[in-house]
Amino acid sequence: MTTAHHAPGETRPGGRTARTRKAVLAAVFQELEDGGFAGLTMEKVAQRAGIHVATLYRRWRSVEGLVCELLAERSSDVPLPDTGSLPEDLRVLARSIADFYGEARMSCLIEAVVSAAARDPQAAAVMRSVFGERLALAGRMVRRAVERGELPADTDPEAVMSALGAPFSYRILIARRPVDRDLADSAATAVWAAARAGAYTRRSGGGPANDTPPGGS
Amino acid sequence: MTTAHHAPGETRPGGRTARTRKAVLAAVFQELEDGGFAGLTMEKVAQRAGIHVATLYRRWRSVEGLVCELLAERSSDVPLPDTGSLPEDLRVLARSIADFYGEARMSCLIEAVVSAAARDPQAAAVMRSVFGERLALAGRMVRRAVERGELPADTDPEAVMSALGAPFSYRILIARRPVDRDLADSAATAVWAAARAGAYTRRSGGGPANDTPPGGS
Repeated sequence: MTTAHHAPGETRPGGRTARTRKAVLAAVFQELEDGGFAGLTMEKVAQRAGIHVATLYRRWRSVEGLVCELLAERSSDVPLPDTGSLPEDLRVLARSIADFYGEARMSCLIEAVVSAAARDPQAAAVMRSVFGERLALAGRMVRRAVERGELPADTDPEAVMSALGAPFSYRILIARRPVDRDLADSAATAVWAAARAGAYTRRSGGGPANDTPPGGS
Repeated sequence: MTTAHHAPGETRPGGRTARTRKAVLAAVFQELEDGGFAGLTMEKVAQRAGIHVATLYRRWRSVEGLVCELLAERSSDVPLPDTGSLPEDLRVLARSIADFYGEARMSCLIEAVVSAAARDPQAAAVMRSVFGERLALAGRMVRRAVERGELPADTDPEAVMSALGAPFSYRILIARRPVDRDLADSAATAVWAAARAGAYTRRSGGGPANDTPPGGS
């Protein structure tokens, strides 16, 4: 429980409101683990968090709102490496993503958020902004690689990072099988080879497939 | 409308049952276009298809069942090329996928199916089997390329085809932006470079990222 870090009466920036939020998000996470998104209701979350359901509705409106806020909170848990080498950065980040989604309730969360976005335009907007921010941050990794001369100068950083994330969402949402380290290593190897082959350059998606990837360094 | 191919009184294998099914799936497709998955109800589908809602419930149980059956029917609409060259096959197939999901209601459909699977284990099973069958079929493209010596012998055909599909589902479900031909060309270039670099071989997902992709032919 994330609330365990703070004593009940403790005063701190955010204070009671911040504590309620932490308790609510922890309750949502636990409920997702127990019953998935299908079983998630405002009533169960309120009961587990120990707050009035009216308070919950007032601040979060719907289960869609809850899962989006939980995603926003958790997505910053995956650290962004800076090892000095893009293939190594990609490998480390891919493994962190695999560990993150290796937890069943994290797979449940991403599934819940996609379902929420399908039903609720506000959830869709939150989701776009959460992933957009993460992509922009992670894109720094690619910009450093371009500066080091590892990748073509016109590489689109967000296209590279989207390509690293894509196999995970495909595995979870479409193939519906668990993510593992093999997937992580495959994704990292693939994105590195593809980026060097110019698949993510800004000119029209890399043009036609080439027989020999253009070299470099 | 798919029903337009057959005159109303025409007798053919499946007959009335097959016609009802076509009318129902066409109605689901139209309803998805009009109101997305959020607005889809059994009542609206029955009304549009001109059948009793009780018949609809008896045969399809839920909107989840309907969208899964529609996906199964439509997924065979994307032709699998055989041009004699894997990079060209990948490019042609990626463009067909882009055209397929370029239609807003097809993006809606895949979103609907993922939402359905999140809520309903039976929908999840249908989805796994639909995509599993498509992957197995599309894998032939990769097996032919291995026979031609274009790819390492231990390449996993379904891993290659999953990698081609992943950027599309990421774009639709996570980034929530339209798919286009740039994405298709980027995906095809990426998968070809990555496959040649050994990212999809059966030994542990390609191992650590290599600086220089191993060559060939």
